[in-house]
Amino acid sequence: LQKRQLNAPAPRRRGVSVVVRAEGGINPEIRKNEDKVVDSVVVSELSKPLTAYCRCWRSGAFPLCDGSHAKHNKATGDNVGPLLVKK
Amino acid sequence: LQKRQLNAPAPRRRGVSVVVRAEGGINPEIRKNEDKVVDSVVVSELSKPLTAYCRCWRSGAFPLCDGSHAKHNKATGDNVGPLLVKK
Ligand code: FES
Ligand code: FES
Repeated sequence: LQKRQLNAPAPRRRGVSVVVRAEGGINPEIRKNEDKVVDSVVVSELSKPLTAYCRCWRSGAFPLCDGSHAKHNKATGDNVGPLLVKK
Repeated sequence: LQKRQLNAPAPRRRGVSVVVRAEGGINPEIRKNEDKVVDSVVVSELSKPLTAYCRCWRSGAFPLCDGSHAKHNKATGDNVGPLLVKK
């Protein structure tokens, strides 16, 4: 066996690929400049009889639900959905 | 190089470990018997001036927030928090 040169990169192992991901986070994009994303609903200000609020962290209209949970559930096998607030 | 026997296991590559996880789901445990977890709040039935609803899917009191988002955020670097419903 030949000794590797100092600082030479390790030899590629063929057929082995490793993907490293941050595990466990559930919000990939929304307001990542905030330490904790908290929203408030003042019920006296609600205009519609029913308003859906997002719990999947994939809505383009966050904190409202825009239906994006369906795509997320289909892609991942998850089962999340919104919180419905009813006047 | 010796040929491997038919059906013999592949040789172990030392120093390489690969963890395979289901990627992208955000709800590990809550009501996994339901296709889609949707909850309703009827605001006229709220007793307290402020009620916090969970959006981290880690609460032991789901759909209410029990503060478990703090542990989740600390463990993962995430920044999720509840929806506050105010009478
Ligand atoms: S879009 Fe997130 S719960 Fe509907
Ligand atoms: S426990 Fe889930 S948001 Fe607080």
